[in-house]
Amino acid sequence: MHKSGDTLPVRIAFVGGGSLNWALTLMADLAEDTRLAAEVRLFDIDPTAAERNARIGARYAQVSSGTPATYRACNSLPEALEGADVVVISILPGRFEDMGHDIAIPARYGIAQAVGDTVGPGGFVRAIRSVPMLAEIGRAVRDHAPEAWVCNLTNPMSCLTGALYAAFPAIRAWGECHEVTKIRRQVAALAGEGASHRDVEVSVAGINHFTFVTRIALHGRDMLPDYRAWAEAHREDGSFLTEPGKDEEHARYFGSRCRVAFDLGARFGVPAAAGDRHLAEFLPGYLDDPQRWGFALTPVEYRIRDRAAKQARAEALAEGQGTPAASRSDEAMVDQIVALKSGAPFVSNVNLPNTGQMPGLPLGEVVETNAMFSGLGIVPMVADPLPAPLTDILRDHADRQTALVGAVMEVDGGALFPLFHSDPLVRHLDTATARAMFAEMLAATAQWLPDNLRGAA
Amino acid sequence: MHKSGDTLPVRIAFVGGGSLNWALTLMADLAEDTRLAAEVRLFDIDPTAAERNARIGARYAQVSSGTPATYRACNSLPEALEGADVVVISILPGRFEDMGHDIAIPARYGIAQAVGDTVGPGGFVRAIRSVPMLAEIGRAVRDHAPEAWVCNLTNPMSCLTGALYAAFPAIRAWGECHEVTKIRRQVAALAGEGASHRDVEVSVAGINHFTFVTRIALHGRDMLPDYRAWAEAHREDGSFLTEPGKDEEHARYFGSRCRVAFDLGARFGVPAAAGDRHLAEFLPGYLDDPQRWGFALTPVEYRIRDRAAKQARAEALAEGQGTPAASRSDEAMVDQIVALKSGAPFVSNVNLPNTGQMPGLPLGEVVETNAMFSGLGIVPMVADPLPAPLTDILRDHADRQTALVGAVMEVDGGALFPLFHSDPLVRHLDTATARAMFAEMLAATAQWLPDNLRGAA
Amino acid sequence: MHKSGDTLPVRIAFVGGGSLNWALTLMADLAEDTRLAAEVRLFDIDPTAAERNARIGARYAQVSSGTPATYRACNSLPEALEGADVVVISILPGRFEDMGHDIAIPARYGIAQAVGDTVGPGGFVRAIRSVPMLAEIGRAVRDHAPEAWVCNLTNPMSCLTGALYAAFPAIRAWGECHEVTKIRRQVAALAGEGASHRDVEVSVAGINHFTFVTRIALHGRDMLPDYRAWAEAHREDGSFLTEPGKDEEHARYFGSRCRVAFDLGARFGVPAAAGDRHLAEFLPGYLDDPQRWGFALTPVEYRIRDRAAKQARAEALAEGQGTPAASRSDEAMVDQIVALKSGAPFVSNVNLPNTGQMPGLPLGEVVETNAMFSGLGIVPMVADPLPAPLTDILRDHADRQTALVGAVMEVDGGALFPLFHSDPLVRHLDTATARAMFAEMLAATAQWLPDNLRGAA
Amino acid sequence: MHKSGDTLPVRIAFVGGGSLNWALTLMADLAEDTRLAAEVRLFDIDPTAAERNARIGARYAQVSSGTPATYRACNSLPEALEGADVVVISILPGRFEDMGHDIAIPARYGIAQAVGDTVGPGGFVRAIRSVPMLAEIGRAVRDHAPEAWVCNLTNPMSCLTGALYAAFPAIRAWGECHEVTKIRRQVAALAGEGASHRDVEVSVAGINHFTFVTRIALHGRDMLPDYRAWAEAHREDGSFLTEPGKDEEHARYFGSRCRVAFDLGARFGVPAAAGDRHLAEFLPGYLDDPQRWGFALTPVEYRIRDRAAKQARAEALAEGQGTPAASRSDEAMVDQIVALKSGAPFVSNVNLPNTGQMPGLPLGEVVETNAMFSGLGIVPMVADPLPAPLTDILRDHADRQTALVGAVMEVDGGALFPLFHSDPLVRHLDTATARAMFAEMLAATAQWLPDNLRGAA
Repeated sequence: MHKSGDTLPVRIAFVGGGSLNWALTLMADLAEDTRLAAEVRLFDIDPTAAERNARIGARYAQVSSGTPATYRACNSLPEALEGADVVVISILPGRFEDMGHDIAIPARYGIAQAVGDTVGPGGFVRAIRSVPMLAEIGRAVRDHAPEAWVCNLTNPMSCLTGALYAAFPAIRAWGECHEVTKIRRQVAALAGEGASHRDVEVSVAGINHFTFVTRIALHGRDMLPDYRAWAEAHREDGSFLTEPGKDEEHARYFGSRCRVAFDLGARFGVPAAAGDRHLAEFLPGYLDDPQRWGFALTPVEYRIRDRAAKQARAEALAEGQGTPAASRSDEAMVDQIVALKSGAPFVSNVNLPNTGQMPGLPLGEVVETNAMFSGLGIVPMVADPLPAPLTDILRDHADRQTALVGAVMEVDGGALFPLFHSDPLVRHLDTATARAMFAEMLAATAQWLPDNLRGAA
Repeated sequence: MHKSGDTLPVRIAFVGGGSLNWALTLMADLAEDTRLAAEVRLFDIDPTAAERNARIGARYAQVSSGTPATYRACNSLPEALEGADVVVISILPGRFEDMGHDIAIPARYGIAQAVGDTVGPGGFVRAIRSVPMLAEIGRAVRDHAPEAWVCNLTNPMSCLTGALYAAFPAIRAWGECHEVTKIRRQVAALAGEGASHRDVEVSVAGINHFTFVTRIALHGRDMLPDYRAWAEAHREDGSFLTEPGKDEEHARYFGSRCRVAFDLGARFGVPAAAGDRHLAEFLPGYLDDPQRWGFALTPVEYRIRDRAAKQARAEALAEGQGTPAASRSDEAMVDQIVALKSGAPFVSNVNLPNTGQMPGLPLGEVVETNAMFSGLGIVPMVADPLPAPLTDILRDHADRQTALVGAVMEVDGGALFPLFHSDPLVRHLDTATARAMFAEMLAATAQWLPDNLRGAA
Repeated sequence: MHKSGDTLPVRIAFVGGGSLNWALTLMADLAEDTRLAAEVRLFDIDPTAAERNARIGARYAQVSSGTPATYRACNSLPEALEGADVVVISILPGRFEDMGHDIAIPARYGIAQAVGDTVGPGGFVRAIRSVPMLAEIGRAVRDHAPEAWVCNLTNPMSCLTGALYAAFPAIRAWGECHEVTKIRRQVAALAGEGASHRDVEVSVAGINHFTFVTRIALHGRDMLPDYRAWAEAHREDGSFLTEPGKDEEHARYFGSRCRVAFDLGARFGVPAAAGDRHLAEFLPGYLDDPQRWGFALTPVEYRIRDRAAKQARAEALAEGQGTPAASRSDEAMVDQIVALKSGAPFVSNVNLPNTGQMPGLPLGEVVETNAMFSGLGIVPMVADPLPAPLTDILRDHADRQTALVGAVMEVDGGALFPLFHSDPLVRHLDTATARAMFAEMLAATAQWLPDNLRGAA
Repeated sequence: MHKSGDTLPVRIAFVGGGSLNWALTLMADLAEDTRLAAEVRLFDIDPTAAERNARIGARYAQVSSGTPATYRACNSLPEALEGADVVVISILPGRFEDMGHDIAIPARYGIAQAVGDTVGPGGFVRAIRSVPMLAEIGRAVRDHAPEAWVCNLTNPMSCLTGALYAAFPAIRAWGECHEVTKIRRQVAALAGEGASHRDVEVSVAGINHFTFVTRIALHGRDMLPDYRAWAEAHREDGSFLTEPGKDEEHARYFGSRCRVAFDLGARFGVPAAAGDRHLAEFLPGYLDDPQRWGFALTPVEYRIRDRAAKQARAEALAEGQGTPAASRSDEAMVDQIVALKSGAPFVSNVNLPNTGQMPGLPLGEVVETNAMFSGLGIVPMVADPLPAPLTDILRDHADRQTALVGAVMEVDGGALFPLFHSDPLVRHLDTATARAMFAEMLAATAQWLPDNLRGAA
């Protein structure tokens, strides 16, 4: 039993352990943390990458503020899972080339996408490709670590968290996304000097990447009126937002002026919490003129270049060059693990099947709201109802995502096309055209699909 | 108590009794019917029109096959309602000029509408204008004929039937629309010689003007496979459909090639039952190219000309010229009244608040399904569930219609704009543009609006 | 395709074809009917009984008013089902000795039961015993006659209709019970000379044997006020009701004074439609003093004697003695079959999974309401909501019945006891006592139970 | 804005400020607390009692560990409410004599009640009497302190919390009950030395006084298996439980052996969290033999004696005799206020309208689950679903409580009797007897009832 002050031992299985983003962030967070004593097992379908990351992990351990974490590359998923308390899933479903097709083919049919990994034709096909992967991981958790806490970081978040639960209904999984940090940073900035986004409480409602915020507080003070006034004042000019610490090119492709968020806030009367590139994909109109709205359609070509640069930096780090730094990121995962192991409550917004927390959406559909992590596990907190016109848009997406996961799990290709065609970015096409586009997209990613889904169009 | 063979006495209050369409159709139907002994009270805000129709009614009575109906113009709504068994509502909410604005203003914003009386910006503003009128009639029914059966024929059907129930929750009202007759005629034609559309049973599901058919039978035989094969065979060339007995110009503006219906059938796997001009307004895409799909955007200018011609014919008829003919129309109203008064069951598709008959749609929202008329009253029959992507589209519209009626009834102007903006034909506009269009439309029809709703944009 | 006037050919598979009640009633009804040309296949696990009934059927055919039905005993269920249009299920689940234990064991624990075949400890154990039998028949229908209409006549009606749907979700089955005829006869009697219970329309709501009536009409006239006044006037003295044409001893054990029905009507404000012996088992109190309320606890010993007498009469009939008479019973089955085959609508109250027809009860649970039989199949009609306190009682039973069927289908013995213990007739026992009673009851009927359910207590 | 370390100013209006229990407990808690700087306004319909308590408060302030609270008696409810941040409601609805009738009259009809303040005939009539009082307070909050947090401590908790929301739907009220502390103490005792019940986390589900616990954790360790084993081991002999620091007579009348809780745990598979005297009133059986189960039917006569003793002690304290002690009680209120004002999360179980936190119960009904208090306000946490047979019992009670509040708010006497009669302790009576008992009970408490409800039986 945990006593205050004790170190909390934890075994973490990292699936996609060769990851260039999340794995390294976790290492820096663990090095900065003083509460956990972590044993990290890295598994990747690319074993070289996992081994490289194990070497990088060892370097982070050297700069640890608390009990140093240990890192080990595993040769199999069962080996990584056996005895794990926590499983982290961060995989790339398919290659960036597949993501390229997800965007380029719809573009030829006149459909622009800013990201293409969540909804729209790109997100839809990405889900078809990746749901079987996550289902396989879910079954492995069932067989090798059924009591483990499972944190999914992979997109499309809603569908993939749904796939884990479809594969193993008793899984203790949540989907983790840091998109909502953006609005918390904005509020902290509004509050002025000394305020930290970590102290900003927000009440989150929606589905992943289409989230809204119904309450905002800082140290017991209601910050919603201040935020609203600021957003309304900047509805025309916007307010440039990008991730801290990134270069100019990254900012150009991933940043935004928040004008979509501000327009949605004015439209529905509730602040939008996700970034413009994501928000714009959930309803028609904004993608017709991204320049006007102040965001970019992120080029896959840039992602490929960026990945190469990251890979080079990782190799160097593994070889002993550079200096790893213990530093606390905006990711909530380490705090979540501490809460689960110690019993001290921690609140953050996560993706879970709806058991009542999201008013107006059917039970069982994956939604994003606040949840409390503690000795009781992960307990969703009931969100405020969103305005009816907004709830109908959410419901349309959530219903489709749920049906999509079901169709892929049951390998029911016939059910897929009507769902694909009903996405708001696709809905205006006639049936024959939509079907042709779907067929092209499936053909381009056929290597990742189960046999029976290849001809689903 | 009714014994088989007896004549059934009935007092009918016709609100909008100067109507040029439905009132005259009812007269012909009553003249042909041999079961009812009807006393018809005609009330209209244009008393001259009601009196003209009373004179026409007297001429129809002369050619009656059964007990001749009597017709009387009333000076007030209470006078017409007092003691009535049945109330028929067929009014024109505003003038054709208002309908002209409903269509012309959105057109300037790039939004085409084929009819403009149901959904879309036109249907929305028409509802704002007419919900108070129907609510007033509903309250008059409550005060003067609370037990009467109330048949609403006025569009927007869902909203206006909802307005009657909002004004007087215990009202015994249904919304009556003959749109589904179209598919029954097509099936009878497919079945070949001797088959009558009156014998074609269809299981209807949806909301008014966006109805689908999940079962079709003729004399106990399943006709769904035959219909499906025929529709699929004509998906490209279509099949021209127009109302029987109309001239070429009418056919041009009101007819269609059913290609939208066939495309929707292929898309969702369930035959669409309404006409293309209506169906096309419920989701984006079809209205981008009406010519390609084979239907027209009905010009309001034609409606005005057509109305003038009808008026001239009616005046002539009232003056003793021409020959009224007892003839059975496709309207179900006389059969419905006979069923209610005699207890012999009659089934037809009607618009009612959902008490469970429409799976997937919230209780209380006005839906269109089959119902049985008998001595038990009007009892809705449970429809088959529609495919999930289609149900989400229906639900989006039905939720909006319900909220729209609620906002108008509570004179809550602030709630209207987000609803207006969320219509599929409007959703792609940014908030400022949508608001400007809404303001223009409200201004154009301001004379019909309650004070507090005039500035609702 | 059926034309008016044609004879309708129909193949009927009768499962439990050696039945002494329903099979002979059907024979008399078919002999009286002039619309069907029926081929009846009789299957029974007692082949001698089926053959005897085939001989009796041949005698009925000789007195037929229309096309004589043919009767044939089949050696196997598949043989009976293959090619059947209609399947009738009327079996005795276990022996009367088992029914004896269902009643005698609870009696020793102080729990009286009037019938013991629906709810209460007796109905519960009867369901455990019989759900697997109906599930087996359901699977045979799936394999040999998946398009057939299936009429279940066996109790416990709700659970066994549920078992058919659990075994084969696409089954076209309904549960048929004539209990509601009682109130229709009472209303016809009230209406006076010449009125037939066949013309009395009632709007039925509830679950089998605990049904209520929210509207009553005769030839278009509302009869609810008359019925209510009569029931209230006889609340103390009651009104004796028994099946027509039965002897004094039968009347003593099956008749009642309707005082429970009248008390429930006064309690909830809605007339109760089932007989007192059944109604009394759904809530505590009435069974504490049956004599006061004017009904009997039917002795199983009488059932055994009665059955022997019926068997003797049947043997005689099969041997050519006595005179079979074409005569129309109160059973709706022949009219239902005619409606399905001809397309002419026929309304009656039946048991079906709730798809929306029973407000306040979850979807999927078996409920009893009106439904329309026609060329569209069996379409449930939406019932009026019952008062909340009554709906909660209904829901408690329906939830338990649904869970019971689920537990037996999944052979999940552990789930059964909490359900058994929660029945209103058992709920007051402490856990240990309830468990002991359940164990005794299961032991007494163990021969009919699946292995894994024998020790379910 | 609150900074860590600052004192939090708070204005508390205490309605029922002459209370002998809760008001004094709050004073001791505030004296022990170091975070709040409280201004307490005491309002009571007995102004003498409020003034006495103000004097007692001043004495507690003298022994304060932090900023001393101030206490002031107010002459009117508006005066107490104006400017209040927090409103506490702890009133006695009627006199103990009324409570005496609530118990004695049903006892004459053979209905025993252990407490009689929650459900059963006593709880029902107490609700009729007190709902109008709480509604009046709710309207005063609406008019004088609409933003205040409102903590109701008065029973019947569910109905009275519901009354506050019925009177003022935007009220920020919760119902607070310490009953669940019992099981937390038991778990701490099981965990052994050093463990505090304050560190035991429990996941609560149910309705007030009929609560269950689906998860138990202590410092991150799952304590459910240990608790279950212990409860099962003591199912027969029980485990005596009483409030700490009470005398033998109090223990005799308020303590219990937990045998009802253990029996319910065995029955439903989920530990029961409330005390036996309360649990036993929610379903039939246990009250038939309280001695066997090891709990008492608390005599109202004892309550009257106990109250007199408390009053004497309070007078003495007010006069300067005795020594008030700063001490932390088991009440959560001070921690809840701190969380609301500071933003630091605090979790406890509270009564709130269901917005999704209680699976299987309708939205809007008052339920008891965990909620998080923080700068975001009071956010309910989604409870685990309870077993179906248990949920049906909960739902039956919650539906009735909701309907009861509705009927009293709308002064709809006719709706009350069917609800009263459907309570599990009353359900077995015939309609005439139940109605007679209800009439007697209403007559005995008539002075507190609105005119139109006096004759509700």
